[in-house]
Amino acid sequence: MGETGSVRGPIRKIVEGPAGYVLEDVPHLTDYIPDLPNFPNPLQDNPAYSAVKQYFVNQDDTVPQKVVVHKAGPRGTHFRRAGPRQWVYFESDDVHACIVTCGGLCPGLNTVIREIVCGLSHMYSVNKVLGIQGGYKGFYARNTIPMTPKSVNDIHKRGGTVLGTSRGGHDTIKIVDSIEDRGINQVYIIGGDGTQKGASAIFEEVQRRDLAVAVVGIPKTIDNDIAVIDKSFGFDTAVEEAQRAINAAHVEAGSAENGIGLVKLMGRYSGFIAMYATLASRDVDCCLIPESPFYLEGSGGLFEHVEKRLKENGHMVIVVAEGAGQDLIAGSIKEKDIEDASGNKLLLDVGLWLSQKIKDHFTTKRNMVITLKYIDPTYMIRAIPSIASDNVYCTLLAHSAIHGAMAGYTGFTVGLVNGRHTYIPFYRVTESRNKVVITDRMWARLLSSTNQPSFLSPKDIEEAKKITNNSPSNINEDKYEDFHSPGRANDTTHLYPALL
Amino acid sequence: MGETGSVRGPIRKIVEGPAGYVLEDVPHLTDYIPDLPNFPNPLQDNPAYSAVKQYFVNQDDTVPQKVVVHKAGPRGTHFRRAGPRQWVYFESDDVHACIVTCGGLCPGLNTVIREIVCGLSHMYSVNKVLGIQGGYKGFYARNTIPMTPKSVNDIHKRGGTVLGTSRGGHDTIKIVDSIEDRGINQVYIIGGDGTQKGASAIFEEVQRRDLAVAVVGIPKTIDNDIAVIDKSFGFDTAVEEAQRAINAAHVEAGSAENGIGLVKLMGRYSGFIAMYATLASRDVDCCLIPESPFYLEGSGGLFEHVEKRLKENGHMVIVVAEGAGQDLIAGSIKEKDIEDASGNKLLLDVGLWLSQKIKDHFTTKRNMVITLKYIDPTYMIRAIPSIASDNVYCTLLAHSAIHGAMAGYTGFTVGLVNGRHTYIPFYRVTESRNKVVITDRMWARLLSSTNQPSFLSPKDIEEAKKITNNSPSNINEDKYEDFHSPGRANDTTHLYPALL
Amino acid sequence: MGETGSVRGPIRKIVEGPAGYVLEDVPHLTDYIPDLPNFPNPLQDNPAYSAVKQYFVNQDDTVPQKVVVHKAGPRGTHFRRAGPRQWVYFESDDVHACIVTCGGLCPGLNTVIREIVCGLSHMYSVNKVLGIQGGYKGFYARNTIPMTPKSVNDIHKRGGTVLGTSRGGHDTIKIVDSIEDRGINQVYIIGGDGTQKGASAIFEEVQRRDLAVAVVGIPKTIDNDIAVIDKSFGFDTAVEEAQRAINAAHVEAGSAENGIGLVKLMGRYSGFIAMYATLASRDVDCCLIPESPFYLEGSGGLFEHVEKRLKENGHMVIVVAEGAGQDLIAGSIKEKDIEDASGNKLLLDVGLWLSQKIKDHFTTKRNMVITLKYIDPTYMIRAIPSIASDNVYCTLLAHSAIHGAMAGYTGFTVGLVNGRHTYIPFYRVTESRNKVVITDRMWARLLSSTNQPSFLSPKDIEEAKKITNNSPSNINEDKYEDFHSPGRANDTTHLYPALL
Amino acid sequence: MGETGSVRGPIRKIVEGPAGYVLEDVPHLTDYIPDLPNFPNPLQDNPAYSAVKQYFVNQDDTVPQKVVVHKAGPRGTHFRRAGPRQWVYFESDDVHACIVTCGGLCPGLNTVIREIVCGLSHMYSVNKVLGIQGGYKGFYARNTIPMTPKSVNDIHKRGGTVLGTSRGGHDTIKIVDSIEDRGINQVYIIGGDGTQKGASAIFEEVQRRDLAVAVVGIPKTIDNDIAVIDKSFGFDTAVEEAQRAINAAHVEAGSAENGIGLVKLMGRYSGFIAMYATLASRDVDCCLIPESPFYLEGSGGLFEHVEKRLKENGHMVIVVAEGAGQDLIAGSIKEKDIEDASGNKLLLDVGLWLSQKIKDHFTTKRNMVITLKYIDPTYMIRAIPSIASDNVYCTLLAHSAIHGAMAGYTGFTVGLVNGRHTYIPFYRVTESRNKVVITDRMWARLLSSTNQPSFLSPKDIEEAKKITNNSPSNINEDKYEDFHSPGRANDTTHLYPALL
Repeated sequence: MGETGSVRGPIRKIVEGPAGYVLEDVPHLTDYIPDLPNFPNPLQDNPAYSAVKQYFVNQDDTVPQKVVVHKAGPRGTHFRRAGPRQWVYFESDDVHACIVTCGGLCPGLNTVIREIVCGLSHMYSVNKVLGIQGGYKGFYARNTIPMTPKSVNDIHKRGGTVLGTSRGGHDTIKIVDSIEDRGINQVYIIGGDGTQKGASAIFEEVQRRDLAVAVVGIPKTIDNDIAVIDKSFGFDTAVEEAQRAINAAHVEAGSAENGIGLVKLMGRYSGFIAMYATLASRDVDCCLIPESPFYLEGSGGLFEHVEKRLKENGHMVIVVAEGAGQDLIAGSIKEKDIEDASGNKLLLDVGLWLSQKIKDHFTTKRNMVITLKYIDPTYMIRAIPSIASDNVYCTLLAHSAIHGAMAGYTGFTVGLVNGRHTYIPFYRVTESRNKVVITDRMWARLLSSTNQPSFLSPKDIEEAKKITNNSPSNINEDKYEDFHSPGRANDTTHLYPALL
Repeated sequence: MGETGSVRGPIRKIVEGPAGYVLEDVPHLTDYIPDLPNFPNPLQDNPAYSAVKQYFVNQDDTVPQKVVVHKAGPRGTHFRRAGPRQWVYFESDDVHACIVTCGGLCPGLNTVIREIVCGLSHMYSVNKVLGIQGGYKGFYARNTIPMTPKSVNDIHKRGGTVLGTSRGGHDTIKIVDSIEDRGINQVYIIGGDGTQKGASAIFEEVQRRDLAVAVVGIPKTIDNDIAVIDKSFGFDTAVEEAQRAINAAHVEAGSAENGIGLVKLMGRYSGFIAMYATLASRDVDCCLIPESPFYLEGSGGLFEHVEKRLKENGHMVIVVAEGAGQDLIAGSIKEKDIEDASGNKLLLDVGLWLSQKIKDHFTTKRNMVITLKYIDPTYMIRAIPSIASDNVYCTLLAHSAIHGAMAGYTGFTVGLVNGRHTYIPFYRVTESRNKVVITDRMWARLLSSTNQPSFLSPKDIEEAKKITNNSPSNINEDKYEDFHSPGRANDTTHLYPALL
Repeated sequence: MGETGSVRGPIRKIVEGPAGYVLEDVPHLTDYIPDLPNFPNPLQDNPAYSAVKQYFVNQDDTVPQKVVVHKAGPRGTHFRRAGPRQWVYFESDDVHACIVTCGGLCPGLNTVIREIVCGLSHMYSVNKVLGIQGGYKGFYARNTIPMTPKSVNDIHKRGGTVLGTSRGGHDTIKIVDSIEDRGINQVYIIGGDGTQKGASAIFEEVQRRDLAVAVVGIPKTIDNDIAVIDKSFGFDTAVEEAQRAINAAHVEAGSAENGIGLVKLMGRYSGFIAMYATLASRDVDCCLIPESPFYLEGSGGLFEHVEKRLKENGHMVIVVAEGAGQDLIAGSIKEKDIEDASGNKLLLDVGLWLSQKIKDHFTTKRNMVITLKYIDPTYMIRAIPSIASDNVYCTLLAHSAIHGAMAGYTGFTVGLVNGRHTYIPFYRVTESRNKVVITDRMWARLLSSTNQPSFLSPKDIEEAKKITNNSPSNINEDKYEDFHSPGRANDTTHLYPALL
Repeated sequence: MGETGSVRGPIRKIVEGPAGYVLEDVPHLTDYIPDLPNFPNPLQDNPAYSAVKQYFVNQDDTVPQKVVVHKAGPRGTHFRRAGPRQWVYFESDDVHACIVTCGGLCPGLNTVIREIVCGLSHMYSVNKVLGIQGGYKGFYARNTIPMTPKSVNDIHKRGGTVLGTSRGGHDTIKIVDSIEDRGINQVYIIGGDGTQKGASAIFEEVQRRDLAVAVVGIPKTIDNDIAVIDKSFGFDTAVEEAQRAINAAHVEAGSAENGIGLVKLMGRYSGFIAMYATLASRDVDCCLIPESPFYLEGSGGLFEHVEKRLKENGHMVIVVAEGAGQDLIAGSIKEKDIEDASGNKLLLDVGLWLSQKIKDHFTTKRNMVITLKYIDPTYMIRAIPSIASDNVYCTLLAHSAIHGAMAGYTGFTVGLVNGRHTYIPFYRVTESRNKVVITDRMWARLLSSTNQPSFLSPKDIEEAKKITNNSPSNINEDKYEDFHSPGRANDTTHLYPALL
């Protein structure tokens, strides 16, 4: 690691360059074990790579976070490019890797697992790979299972994770004890926001103990709510599968008198799946997401829109992200003072809550016969195998992770930034969350396609714009648009500074 | 159009900036009709867009063609960013648009058509949109059909193109006569390489006649062989659908003694579908593409690989792109001197040819019983509706095209560059073709995953590398890697200058 | 109508023959309009039917209800065979048909509609066909829509019903008034149990008024719970689609610690979908249906089975038919004295109720961490288009209905009996319900495949067998076995005589 | 084996009864090993079967071949009903079963294999089951593989056969030697027409050697061309999957000028797949099958129909069964005297041949521009896993086979007859072939739906009818109609006696 630049704290490595160029670099084992030996990358002796053997990623390659630029604008933040390096810091025979999957299911998990195992074996002849079972707690509470290219050969054709998963169970000390005791020196951690925070803690403890252990995160979130990266694996698959539920809702609604099809999709904090599923389907008349507060009654409210649509078309389809309207639900629980456990449960599910609200309104207040069918396809979406494009994407993420670990980088997560694979410091993906920006054209496009109300008063609009305009990132026009395929993440870091 | 910079010829508008910044700009109607009036963009009065009305794309926004950069490297080529402009050069009531689809089928065609019609209507209140039937010749030989949001409402759920399509039929004069006679002033042309060349000719003739007609291309190629852009619409759908054929080949091969499943996939000049389908599937033992010449007999040849695999596993799967091995086929036709029409046909189909060659070799020369099953899923792939991610992508392409035309840009094609929508001059997408670069890591990754021979002699490898190294683009390490989801196009323009 | 035999009441036409042969015949228009003219069947002039023109169904053709026979056993009940007759009682130009769909959605509804319209047109040149919108009440509260082969051409590719549907709304007098006023003389009624009862009432009123109107039922029930017939259309499609939900439950369960996947499937009174979906899948560890009462606690109870499976495999999948365990739920509501509207709702859904019960038991009583995922795919199953085999089946049902109506039969429903299309008097399909017989081998097969407890005490078993043995039908061993493809209906008429 | 009746030859056991009742019985081990001991069926001790334990199939249960009957008609041919018997002739510990799959792939093969293994184990506690690899020759040329419920647990989710398959390789002596040497006493043979003939030879040799070995056939034919039985497993799956190809052909045709989509489907001698796929799809304009000879030129010929359709609709879809038009092809080869190996190949494929003929005709003779797309989905159809209804069907076939073997029956094939599982003597399923009867209403229905010519001259029609009328089976009207779900087999035995 030649250049280190100005390092802020143990894990912030900021490198500056001319014309406003900034590199947010990732840690390296040599940062705290300076005399770690290195070795020529064995990839150059691999016949499959023979035609490319000299083309290791250049040490200086970086990828800009923003790609909409002006002729004379500043160059901005960059990340280190992923890929194989000329020198590695592990000898193949000495590598002892482990893989763990944490949190909820997401299409593609098994592909990532498979490709870490196969990639280590085929590219670097690494054959000691352990599976940690059942999430973080598997490090200390379960047996490990050896993983070979043969044992993982077909797993990408199945949904779920062959390793099992769980939420929580993160005990940094016990985990690092287990890593140390078992002699593990490469740790691949697949999971979401919370999991990456856990990975960061593991990295710090590993560093504190001066262990030559690379800790690598592969970000997983079906909701696409991880900051910085273009899109998360499994997202396209989820949007694809969500079409089935929307189609069913459309058929049910269209076959009934005043039929309403209501589909709840994943998205606790970010409405990307709901938004893209709506845009892809074009059968949706209203899409509700956490980022866009809505209200039910009165002018410009949801009930008015529903009634209008029923009068026009005789039926309608509503898509609601699971995190939408949580403030409304909380309010309505308080009102009725329901404190019962199962009662709470019922009401906190926005789909069931909204179903009841709509039925009540039209049946009792408007005296209209309506037929509402509620569909919750969540587990049917999460559990499918990934589509081909996600499959390839998972492969590349796994390979990037491997190349980074072999090259001695640590304390990073792999991520696609503007179509390029990069290494991103943990803090950048955990300190904020990717959200739909409702002042962006993508959301406007959705409003235009569904013809739904924006649920914004003129004052709200001014507010929303002001926040955006005051954002420091506004110097660069990059922030509000240009999604490609689902996934151009809207970094909310700068949009809601109050939250950070 | 403020800045014009140095314009080379009628359609090359090159703008230069500091630090090696270059903008390859697109023509604008005011380039040849200087006093064309403009109007405030009506999008700002659209309720759906009310929250974003001030966020028109900045006139100066550009997108770099290369995003792997060095701290002090030159900035390189950029394209104009797509999106709505503050000023438009058409009044909504005066717009008279037409849409034409040309060439072979590709998933997503109907979505693009739908979104041009709906986008013009919903965003710009444009209601005069004509469909040109049956490709270019429909301009002068067929009736047009009026298209409305209602008439196109469900077409994205069907494969093919509701407008019909054909190859050829391009007669610039007749087409521009028809455009002029019918009073059309926005022409949306969806088609591949050849079609875009035709669009360029139409643009030039339009310009020659000083017509205020925007000519816009939406690049279509299921093979993903269009230069510059990240990936073409329908490509992900094609790779997804190709999995069915590969699965079937795998099952057939695995159920027979010395079973060989051979699948031909699309790819006349570029093997992207074959490569990505192979990477996504992991059941393929050999992938043959036009970019990587192969040979049958002898050491390191295909037959040797086949025999090895049959001995190891008892079966194997081969994927061959339709354009692979054309030199071999040509040679073998010559040898046998078959000049018969249907004979030629048979032999020029690489799938049938290869099937025969393999059967002959093993049956007669090696005296082995083999069971070869040949699958050609081409039309089953081309004809399906697009998957959700392609559906959204098609929407954005259509919207970009509309915004560009309304803003007075012309003579351009829309394209995704590093995840951003841009306007690209016609010549950039027609003067070269996107190809798989066999000295890239993606191809190495495939070789590693299939374990197939590279079919390269040590001398070939040196050659391949030399060409790459001598390429002028080599200053920037950008060229050989970093595919994200299928589509990071490898621009071979600079890699094989001898071929162009 | 030559032979009438002994008619019991207005609609029971029983014909007896030698060796215990009984024909349960259907009404005919000439039963109450004796001098109705008839005409040669125009089918014989139809070119497509030219090669079969002499092969009208023989007047004497009948189909036995039971096909497992003994050398010297009695011949038993028969039904009249469906198909075209040599003489018809309507002239094509005079036919004025209408079609109505009632009740819940079922795959294939649109195919039946399409084929009645196309069959009337193509086979009998009948061109006056009306669609009644929104179920029974559409007869008097909605406009009708004219239906042509062109307008219904593609509807079989969509789920739902293009006519719309509703429950209830049956007002015999108003409906028959509407039939009479509009001059309708063939009424095709597609719906379930309740709908067929309504059809029967319409037939009786039509008969009372001496109208020459044929009233024909096409039985529709996704649950396959209609008596006498082999299986109902859409059933195979439903079982097929249910596999998705079971697969998802299996993946979710298998990826979690003590994972339980719980899938609710349709089946209010009959567990056929649950049973066949379980048999087809083989990933299910417990299947609960209305016909087989179960209990939760204690030895041989559900909780014990769940715990055993979790200990053996670490996960399990439960399929529950919506009507299963209703007695248990009723009991548990009483216990807790929950009278709140939404509370009731929650508890009456067996899926939500069972989820809660299992969670409570394991979390509080057994102190085990379990992860339960509940999937309710009901609307996603109901709303899909029918698979090819159901598509063909729907065609044949529609054609049988048309041939019967044209031939002057009325007051009947069409039905497949032992693989033959027949005409069945309404009362036979409405007076009992097809149920899974838990003393049959099919259910034993399921118990064997899931290895679940039978929830039967030795005393229960004796009881169950006794009922069966005492049944009068026991002379013929036909009752308990021999399902072919899903659907060999178990007629419970004889099993639970108390219920009838 | 109480009653044996009049046995004709070694394998014809005909039992006669009153009123024309005939039972075509199957052989039993005790026919040639009279003193073979028997044992109580262990199924009665199986907890899953506890509620049904007394319900063994009655020794006298039989199933009539024809179910359309007259009040006083003769009773006709019957088959022995399948199912468990009270007494078995094998002790579970002594059973040593083997399974072999022969011939081409068919959806459901793995399900049958799985269920024989699991059924033997779960129902009869039989644990010695061998898989014979690669078809008949595996008996003597390959190693066997032990099969357990665990090893076959998931195989039904995969297409193909895990045992491998091949054509030919039948050497009766070597096979029976192997059976004898290995101590195998139950042989389950899954395969088509030819395979069942082989099974019959094995049975005869086994009998000749007085071996207490049960030889059981499970008929497999994707074409549904096996006589007597209602339909063959995998057929519904094949028809379902064929829809994809027809849809693709429809899209391709509809998007081109004078577009013709041509799909070749399986069906060497019987056009059932083509006929049912056409009926299910409704997008087909012409269906050509082996049973209905057609001609190209002149009035009433195919070219005329094609031209008419293109003029009416601008496009058309043709489905051709692989065995259709073989006489025409043979004629056309002769004409041109092409003897070249690859030439022959091309011409003998009816799809390629017909494509060429149509292109030639319209391009050269009619001077019309047409666009023909030819799709051959054969291997993509054969290789998929079976749909749910076929999955259940396969289970029942496997169970019937097991019950029969355990009960000492041998020399039989299992088969569904009028919705009931039966045991059928080998000769009945091999001595004739199930074919589409073009004088039946089903074919008329197809002609009516496609509106294609019948290709029959008035004289042909007379001929066809005459053959049918003179057929001895004509006493019973059963023969020409009443298909239920795809598959009510038309037994041509009696229709074209000249062919047998």
